[in-house]
Amino acid sequence: MNLSLLTDFYELSMMQGYFLRQENPAVVFDMFFRRQPFGGGFSVFAGLDTALSHIASLSFSQEDLAWLDSLGTFQKSFLDFLGRLKFKGDIWAMTEGSLAFPGEPLVRVHASLIEAQLIESALLSILNFQTLIATKSARIRLAARGGSVVEFGLRRAQGLDGALSASRAAFIGGASATSNTLAGKLYGIPVRGTMAHSWVMAFHNELEAFEKYAQTYPDGTVLLIDTYDTLGSGIENAIAVGRKLKADGHTGFGVRLDSGDLEYLSKAVRARLDSAGLTDARIMASNELEEEIIEQLVTRGAPIDSWGVGTHLVTGGNDPALTGVYKICARQDSGRWVPTIKVSNNPEKVTNPGIKQVWRFTNAAGSPLADLIGLADDAPRPGVPHQLHHPSGDYRSLVLEEYAGITPLLTLCVKGGEILDGADLPAARSRAIAELDGLDDTYKRLINPHVYKVSLSTGLADLKARLIQDTLARGAHG
Amino acid sequence: MNLSLLTDFYELSMMQGYFLRQENPAVVFDMFFRRQPFGGGFSVFAGLDTALSHIASLSFSQEDLAWLDSLGTFQKSFLDFLGRLKFKGDIWAMTEGSLAFPGEPLVRVHASLIEAQLIESALLSILNFQTLIATKSARIRLAARGGSVVEFGLRRAQGLDGALSASRAAFIGGASATSNTLAGKLYGIPVRGTMAHSWVMAFHNELEAFEKYAQTYPDGTVLLIDTYDTLGSGIENAIAVGRKLKADGHTGFGVRLDSGDLEYLSKAVRARLDSAGLTDARIMASNELEEEIIEQLVTRGAPIDSWGVGTHLVTGGNDPALTGVYKICARQDSGRWVPTIKVSNNPEKVTNPGIKQVWRFTNAAGSPLADLIGLADDAPRPGVPHQLHHPSGDYRSLVLEEYAGITPLLTLCVKGGEILDGADLPAARSRAIAELDGLDDTYKRLINPHVYKVSLSTGLADLKARLIQDTLARGAHG
Repeated sequence: MNLSLLTDFYELSMMQGYFLRQENPAVVFDMFFRRQPFGGGFSVFAGLDTALSHIASLSFSQEDLAWLDSLGTFQKSFLDFLGRLKFKGDIWAMTEGSLAFPGEPLVRVHASLIEAQLIESALLSILNFQTLIATKSARIRLAARGGSVVEFGLRRAQGLDGALSASRAAFIGGASATSNTLAGKLYGIPVRGTMAHSWVMAFHNELEAFEKYAQTYPDGTVLLIDTYDTLGSGIENAIAVGRKLKADGHTGFGVRLDSGDLEYLSKAVRARLDSAGLTDARIMASNELEEEIIEQLVTRGAPIDSWGVGTHLVTGGNDPALTGVYKICARQDSGRWVPTIKVSNNPEKVTNPGIKQVWRFTNAAGSPLADLIGLADDAPRPGVPHQLHHPSGDYRSLVLEEYAGITPLLTLCVKGGEILDGADLPAARSRAIAELDGLDDTYKRLINPHVYKVSLSTGLADLKARLIQDTLARGAHG
Repeated sequence: MNLSLLTDFYELSMMQGYFLRQENPAVVFDMFFRRQPFGGGFSVFAGLDTALSHIASLSFSQEDLAWLDSLGTFQKSFLDFLGRLKFKGDIWAMTEGSLAFPGEPLVRVHASLIEAQLIESALLSILNFQTLIATKSARIRLAARGGSVVEFGLRRAQGLDGALSASRAAFIGGASATSNTLAGKLYGIPVRGTMAHSWVMAFHNELEAFEKYAQTYPDGTVLLIDTYDTLGSGIENAIAVGRKLKADGHTGFGVRLDSGDLEYLSKAVRARLDSAGLTDARIMASNELEEEIIEQLVTRGAPIDSWGVGTHLVTGGNDPALTGVYKICARQDSGRWVPTIKVSNNPEKVTNPGIKQVWRFTNAAGSPLADLIGLADDAPRPGVPHQLHHPSGDYRSLVLEEYAGITPLLTLCVKGGEILDGADLPAARSRAIAELDGLDDTYKRLINPHVYKVSLSTGLADLKARLIQDTLARGAHG
């Protein structure tokens, strides 16, 4: 299916307006978000390759154009133009797996105004969702403190592509495997899964069901022990099968708990397994898990080796959308770049004007100290102190004296409509894990974390203050 | 892309287990949910046609089979079998747009055990999500009390298909239009959308931007008035343009508010429009709306005519998954149907055994009084009192004496793998609206509603009690 029409209708109505009014200057748009999801201290940027592949493939079919024509909104000259339209701009972006913070441009698009509108809806949809889920996955991995996390979310995901995209993003954020078979095939993510309650119920009794499963899969057998009564029958039947497998030289035996009190049951099950000599048997837990529940169980010593996480991991749970936005920050006027700003009745919705870069200051160990948003042609000089202005543009600022490195975060990834590099999903996952390892623990608290500093450069802060004044005057008086 | 691999891996590992163990009896599975989403009093069933189309198209390609082979988990005989596998079973289901309540089978699948597992993951994923969103949409429509609801969610949706499926389900639940152009083309949903802040920022000033837009779209012009200062410039520039359009005989003029206090601003904007003689100008509001915010604004008299709802409508907001499940309820053994049950450490997870139907009792006006779940071959006789047992299977019951009609809710929609009827999206939407209109208001409160009664028949309650005892004994002793 051609997905080029997967766009908000107002993009098309604006595009026709620009086309008919011959108002199609070169522009720059930023994509950024204003608030960390989950009340957390960081986000993990994800979805870029998915978004770029979509953008590179945008091209309206004759069928699309005929359907648009049937709406009565579009003129023939515009539809002809649309039939030839491809995205030919440049895109700068953070690398997938990078840590990201509010207000920072994650993506910067340089294109004609019409092309920039063309890609807005899908770019936002894809990046908002995958960044949300990669962040959730990273939080869950942190909570598990070395226990493995398997993404089990397909049946609770939002649409079939919601499931696929979630599997991809969860892997970037640190999940080690997925239950989603197609995600395994498409993205090379390890796939996992053993049995459902229906397997146990399909046989005459639980022991027969376990035996039949172990005959089929004697290595890596993980038995689901809560179909009837976890401690009353499930664990004893599992131990009978596990001992036989062990005697026959098989490995990887384990059990899964999917209901009841997971601290109480995991401790009781661990004791029974150990008493039976199955000290290397692993315990997996599932059932509406999320990072706060997992952290609590880990802190209290629940002997759970791996975590199957579904609903909350693939939807974001009670915070199901990163509210990333896409705002024009500059346009060409008579061959000159003019910075643009959006003022608003909500002060936190005022945008940062101009063509910008994000620089990360790090200490000698490579750990992030603070991020600086500045104008792209005004890179901070290494080795000297820098004044960091509060992003609200008010009186607050501080001077960063001690740091070891400065790294620009946005790199060119699409040039003239052509994608420069393909995705490397394992590299994105490794980056996310390494960047989080390097981040100070105070920023990684799940609840009420320390706020990482994102600041404006002096040049940007001055420009923003000036444009707010100019724009209010111009807006009011036309 | 072939989506047949879009399944939890354990379905395939179980399917191979059943195949190799030659354990493939005829079975019946129910799909149902245990808890109303959003703390509400009803759900609107949606997604059936999407799910059935997926199921009817399931067929593993040679490429899929080669990839599965590469995992080292599957035997050649099973992969050969998989290459020939199609779903050939029967499916009974509620009609899209029907009101649904916890514990009721929404879908009943009759198939071989292997085929029943084949379809589980996608069936759950599709029905859980669309039912969630149709329900959210219905709640938002109720809150708007006659104001129109436009789904604006693409950029905040979970994956591209998450967006498309949400547009479809939101329409069934009562939204009148979508911003998602592709959803308009695929499903025939009306599409809407006018301008973004970027339109206003792309011109030299706000008035020029409004004038250029009105030149392009002189009828149905909706101007976004909060880019700079809603009351300071936006409304005055809009009125200037609106008066000119009106003088020239154009209609459908309106303004959109996307930030700030919507009660205060809508009242102030209404007063300015009316003073300027633009009494027929419409006010649209957007900005992170959901049903409780809308209900409060409507109750307080905010003069808002239409509501653009994005994030919360397409994700479900803080309740982003209907936790529907798919449980085996019967299997054939030596030619005889044997009811099955899942007992659990969580009592609310005990399933209802046997092949079941749901009957809705209605009064003379057609309004629902109570639903009864019973064995399919034990339909309640009309005209006589019926004992309704609490679904927990405890001592609670009541007798329904007065009612006018009894309607079975599950109808045959797939026979031998063939879909009997295609989708009729407008009919599903009309059904949802009509069924909600008929439902007593106490069940429609957004918060803490009256609980609609879903009960077990005497035959089913007796069977369930007996099987709980039998199964606990059998599970423990094998």
